Amino acid sequence: MSDILDQLAATIATRRDADPQASYTASLLAKGPAKCAEKFGEEAVEAIVAAARGDRAALTSEAADVLYHLLVLLTAGGVTLDEVRAELARREGVSGHAEKAARKG
Amino acid sequence: MSDILDQLAATIATRRDADPQASYTASLLAKGPAKCAEKFGEEAVEAIVAAARGDRAALTSEAADVLYHLLVLLTAGGVTLDEVRAELARREGVSGHAEKAARKG
Amino acid sequence: MSDILDQLAATIATRRDADPQASYTASLLAKGPAKCAEKFGEEAVEAIVAAARGDRAALTSEAADVLYHLLVLLTAGGVTLDEVRAELARREGVSGHAEKAARKG
Amino acid sequence: MSDILDQLAATIATRRDADPQASYTASLLAKGPAKCAEKFGEEAVEAIVAAARGDRAALTSEAADVLYHLLVLLTAGGVTLDEVRAELARREGVSGHAEKAARKG
Repeated sequence: MSDILDQLAATIATRRDADPQASYTASLLAKGPAKCAEKFGEEAVEAIVAAARGDRAALTSEAADVLYHLLVLLTAGGVTLDEVRAELARREGVSGHAEKAARKG
Repeated sequence: MSDILDQLAATIATRRDADPQASYTASLLAKGPAKCAEKFGEEAVEAIVAAARGDRAALTSEAADVLYHLLVLLTAGGVTLDEVRAELARREGVSGHAEKAARKG
Repeated sequence: MSDILDQLAATIATRRDADPQASYTASLLAKGPAKCAEKFGEEAVEAIVAAARGDRAALTSEAADVLYHLLVLLTAGGVTLDEVRAELARREGVSGHAEKAARKG
Repeated sequence: MSDILDQLAATIATRRDADPQASYTASLLAKGPAKCAEKFGEEAVEAIVAAARGDRAALTSEAADVLYHLLVLLTAGGVTLDEVRAELARREGVSGHAEKAARKG
């Protein structure tokens, strides 16, 4: 089983060595982690503005942008989504093994 | 089935009406969406700095913080994680229905 | 006497009621404070990335962008540069009067 | 002649080699440019939230914080306020020489 975040992460990974002219994500990854970080920051700011204004629809849309560009940033930095999930699970006191089993179950 | 993000979102939701002195998350939610947005922004900046410095371990840890505080921000703004997933799926051309079925499958 | 920041602030003020198609600044102001805040945030993130990477030339250039877009944001929010200077002076224990006199001297 | 920003920049410069326990600014500078960038980002986010909410008083106060922490960041990165002013003047088509003369005049 995998959710939309896993599907997006898998798609983004295929863009890493793709022709930068072939897709938006490929062109972003080709510019390196610092540029991916800037783009992620831009989307984070837009989510912040949406939340501060109490704009629920905009917050939904901007949060989607944030998640997408966080996945791009992780890919650029060589970190997998599962490593971040494992870190969250560790903090919650769930063993990484149990977490992996739960997601596969 | 649910992954660690769903588990965290569920836990955060229970903090919404909890005593602000009972937990960090409850105290953050009690301060309202604008303050949750500031905290999310702070964590986003730390992830940006980690990525710009090429610090893989810090990026993993800060990305976990970003996801946690994005979930808090969504809760404060009345948006569910599934609504954000649906928005991502819609953009990817996956129907919301198929997406929901896939995650439950 | 006035420095480049005052000159920029004065120029930006004249853009407030100008044709949005006439200049970049006029078009930004026409979109309102929230959009000006997003643009300011974008430039702040670029300065953060430049500093985190130790890129001195980029930091100089991005800091100039930050100051320019902070002035635009203040204009959009109805705050003058002198009010911000007075707040800084107040914190430093310099009376606003002395501060104004010093800048004019 | 110098304005409050120059005075603050001069004060911050004296903190660079001071005992980190002696002042907030000294402790921030001792942590290096990346940490100063994070703190600047935190203040930038607070200014963004204030502007998005239309809170004029908060925007004034947060803009003061932004300017202070931008000066700290510049100091940490080895960039002077006058270099940033010169960059802004260059973009405005004012020669650095004329700009310097104007501020001293």
